Amino acid sequence: MSRSDGDPLQRLAAQLRFAREAERLKTVERHNLVHDRSRRENSAEHSFSLALLVELLFEHAPRGIDRHRALQLALLHDLVEIDAGDTFCHDEEAHRDKAQREQRAATRLYGLLPPEQGQRWRQLWEEFETGGSAEARLVAAIDRLQPVLLHELTDGAAWREAGIRRSQVLARVAPIECELPRLWPVVVELIDRAVAAGWLAEG
Amino acid sequence: MSRSDGDPLQRLAAQLRFAREAERLKTVERHNLVHDRSRRENSAEHSFSLALLVELLFEHAPRGIDRHRALQLALLHDLVEIDAGDTFCHDEEAHRDKAQREQRAATRLYGLLPPEQGQRWRQLWEEFETGGSAEARLVAAIDRLQPVLLHELTDGAAWREAGIRRSQVLARVAPIECELPRLWPVVVELIDRAVAAGWLAEG
Repeated sequence: MSRSDGDPLQRLAAQLRFAREAERLKTVERHNLVHDRSRRENSAEHSFSLALLVELLFEHAPRGIDRHRALQLALLHDLVEIDAGDTFCHDEEAHRDKAQREQRAATRLYGLLPPEQGQRWRQLWEEFETGGSAEARLVAAIDRLQPVLLHELTDGAAWREAGIRRSQVLARVAPIECELPRLWPVVVELIDRAVAAGWLAEG
Repeated sequence: MSRSDGDPLQRLAAQLRFAREAERLKTVERHNLVHDRSRRENSAEHSFSLALLVELLFEHAPRGIDRHRALQLALLHDLVEIDAGDTFCHDEEAHRDKAQREQRAATRLYGLLPPEQGQRWRQLWEEFETGGSAEARLVAAIDRLQPVLLHELTDGAAWREAGIRRSQVLARVAPIECELPRLWPVVVELIDRAVAAGWLAEG
């Protein structure tokens, strides 16, 4: 446990350096618009929504999941974007070097923390990225749900802008079927309503 | 436990209504500027920072605190601002009816949830507001720390704009001394540097 690892004041100084750096997630822009369409969402407020959804919908998750670990994953899942930027999920070009950019970012960012804590947090992030635990797979599924709610609130503005098709969104949200089966028909209905409204292209 | 309370699909529908409403926290503006001074911070991204700080600094908190409960409180502590708006901490006029506005907001917002969950979440928020547990007092103290880090990153721009004095900030951050004594000298030093730099008025 971290309490016995190094001088507490040195640890604190390193943690505050990390905290200052983490503030920068607030200017990492995502493709989606916020509810009133006044601007694009940023990755810090997206992470807030994700953590809140984890807490809100936890009763629908498989049993035996560590709720605190799931919240930890939600809070740190996008921190690498401080250096690597957000990669729009339907941008195939940008996805080519995404993993490399994010690994470099993880090395720098988690390297700011006290070594043992940095290693632990980086492992949590790797766990999320690789789907290496039930908690990671749950949070990744909810990470696919949150944008759909936002697209619904904004009449699919960001979908329309990028000319997204139904099949692309279905492929994107597929993890929800497995991790949160109770939500799946609700999500499919929501997508079908978006197609009917002309927010998503058919096919 | 909520799993046995009501029809799961009805509960889910209520939870998604609440989730859509919670998206609105992203356009509740606070007084503070984000790190690059490009705009004011909003309450959703502030809540993200608060939850992350709780996780980051937890080793410095008193022993025996429930870490998951502390994260829950951080995530929901500002949701009432969706209706009530953010009240700038040094605005005495606006503080007069703050409690009343927030109680009304809590009734409406938590009323969207399945009844048992809504009651539980509202109780958590009341616990935060009244400092009714060690977790609530810890989160409230960190809630006072986060803006100070942001003021430091922005050369005290929002402090200068409002003509804030050292004693006002010291009174505001006082809970840190009790809840996170190891952080206290660090925070005082930061405030004194802000005075020396002319970001805060003396006295």
